Amino acid sequence: MGSAFDGAVTAITPPDDAAATAALEHLDRLTKPPGSLGRLERVAVQLAAIAGASPPPVPAPAAVAVFAADHGVWAEGVTPWPQEVTAQMVANFCAGGAAINVLARQVGATVVVVDVGVAGPVGDGAAGGPRLIRARVAPGTANLAAGPAMTPGQAGQALDVGAAVAADLAAGGAGCLVTGDMGIANTTASAAVIAALTGRPAAEVTGRGTGIDDARLAVKVGVVSRAVGRLGGRDPLTVLTEVGGLEIAALAGFIVGAAAARRPVIVDGVIAAAGLLVAAGLAPGVLPYAIAGHRSAEPGATAALEHLGLDPLLDLELRLGEGSGACLAVPIVEAAARILGEMATFDSAGVTEK
Amino acid sequence: MGSAFDGAVTAITPPDDAAATAALEHLDRLTKPPGSLGRLERVAVQLAAIAGASPPPVPAPAAVAVFAADHGVWAEGVTPWPQEVTAQMVANFCAGGAAINVLARQVGATVVVVDVGVAGPVGDGAAGGPRLIRARVAPGTANLAAGPAMTPGQAGQALDVGAAVAADLAAGGAGCLVTGDMGIANTTASAAVIAALTGRPAAEVTGRGTGIDDARLAVKVGVVSRAVGRLGGRDPLTVLTEVGGLEIAALAGFIVGAAAARRPVIVDGVIAAAGLLVAAGLAPGVLPYAIAGHRSAEPGATAALEHLGLDPLLDLELRLGEGSGACLAVPIVEAAARILGEMATFDSAGVTEK
Repeated sequence: MGSAFDGAVTAITPPDDAAATAALEHLDRLTKPPGSLGRLERVAVQLAAIAGASPPPVPAPAAVAVFAADHGVWAEGVTPWPQEVTAQMVANFCAGGAAINVLARQVGATVVVVDVGVAGPVGDGAAGGPRLIRARVAPGTANLAAGPAMTPGQAGQALDVGAAVAADLAAGGAGCLVTGDMGIANTTASAAVIAALTGRPAAEVTGRGTGIDDARLAVKVGVVSRAVGRLGGRDPLTVLTEVGGLEIAALAGFIVGAAAARRPVIVDGVIAAAGLLVAAGLAPGVLPYAIAGHRSAEPGATAALEHLGLDPLLDLELRLGEGSGACLAVPIVEAAARILGEMATFDSAGVTEK
Repeated sequence: MGSAFDGAVTAITPPDDAAATAALEHLDRLTKPPGSLGRLERVAVQLAAIAGASPPPVPAPAAVAVFAADHGVWAEGVTPWPQEVTAQMVANFCAGGAAINVLARQVGATVVVVDVGVAGPVGDGAAGGPRLIRARVAPGTANLAAGPAMTPGQAGQALDVGAAVAADLAAGGAGCLVTGDMGIANTTASAAVIAALTGRPAAEVTGRGTGIDDARLAVKVGVVSRAVGRLGGRDPLTVLTEVGGLEIAALAGFIVGAAAARRPVIVDGVIAAAGLLVAAGLAPGVLPYAIAGHRSAEPGATAALEHLGLDPLLDLELRLGEGSGACLAVPIVEAAARILGEMATFDSAGVTEK
């Protein structure tokens, strides 16, 4: 493993219990029945613990990192989409036309696009558009159905890329990091990582991705099942190397980097959930910094979040990826901080308590 | 019934099917797998149908109307909160210190506070703060446990107040209306309206409101059960008059007014759901204009939404009211319009289709 990732793992510190306690107490002084803001109150406490302050600063602006990579397992026929779509979508991200661009603009979030393993050529970003970071470790993974998806060295490089991007965004002023991803066939690799690290059967965690039919789903489940079957155990780094993806590795590094920088990291769908499982396996201290943005329609995402004990904020039946669901959760997270920081107390407003 | 409400009922027109079809077709040309934005796509189609255009304009800015009223049933001991809190919270809304103020500011929504039936004196609003509309029909309802909560004339006046507020906000440029409410003991009246109009038993639709204990809950269920038991049928206006509340009536009028003005109306929790049941009973044409903002922790809210076939956007275990959950859904609704209006198509972005 490379130095950026190792350094980030070492730099993670526990969240601040005193700030969490102060936030809990302050929430009950605000002009509302105790607990009546439900999940928002729990996020507020988490943000206070992360920031080490109650009230915490509003975690803004958010920054979305979209990690793009291709997958050798594409050759198994697990998806009807041509592999070239990964590079085409990178161009779309850079031009500002994808869903994640629209959603990020709305919430005032910046977008960076990271080529950590695209197979084909990727053009320059557009002037004034999202920054394109060229950090290609390899032109896609090898076919995980036939052997290891990558070498340990490649996995380490991709972890480093993610950790470095998180550190860079945090240093640049991002108050909250948001995971994004793009890669044709990446729900197959994610399902394999999730099956391996949760111990669930392939059929339970493998979904229809972009919307494949029954025949392709059967192929996909078979690929995932056999790949997981050849793994000897649940070592996270081995699982990542054997059946993962370069963007999954980078996402794991990104999540670790966010925790090291004491930033909340909003996790998107099934690809990000696979990255989070790897991150939590390598550095359990990341979990207090992670917020599950939404419940993806992919069954593997729910399996991973349940395994980690995380409850997603949104459930809008999304299955796009790119960071779209996490980005939609940004206003909820910011609202939690604002509630703690801006609401009147019973005393200050002259409201009688029960 | 008064003229503002009657006029609004007559003015409601069906949503635009052609615009909905155009939106559906355009969604499948955007650079994403078909259907992959889940609920967001369905909201986008609804907004197109409401606006009569695809893409629809972003329904902004939003305007929240917080209807405040007191309830004579408070005397039955259904809540530990003193009745004076309703007026105190109106002052808090006007001073900008309540949860709804914080959440509205974040999403750029205006707040108007409507005294449609507060029992005690209500001071002037603060300069530069939310507008206070004085439209008190009565100083609270009569005790619905002992007899009719209001007269038919009062119900009609409150319906008029709500319809007029919606028309006023729409004329003032609001692109989206958001229901808000405040009133100590109003979950009791709401449960009674919901039990009566859905046919569900009182015990199934009566919740803990601000967080009451088992003893008080038993009192509350008994009150609701007996009040509903004396009703002879399910006529919405009779139910509203006998067991409803002045803010529930105003909310029903507000929802009808929103539909008449062709504005999407985001419905908050259990109080608003009771108002929506009444509105839909009096004017079924409102439903295509309604968006359920969230699933309140109050069981009656879910019962009402199920009865109407509505699926809420958020589920954050909120039970505050004020419009808080609906306001948190505003960015989701706006995102749906932006997706349709701003995303690139496969053709424009040069992305290969499967």
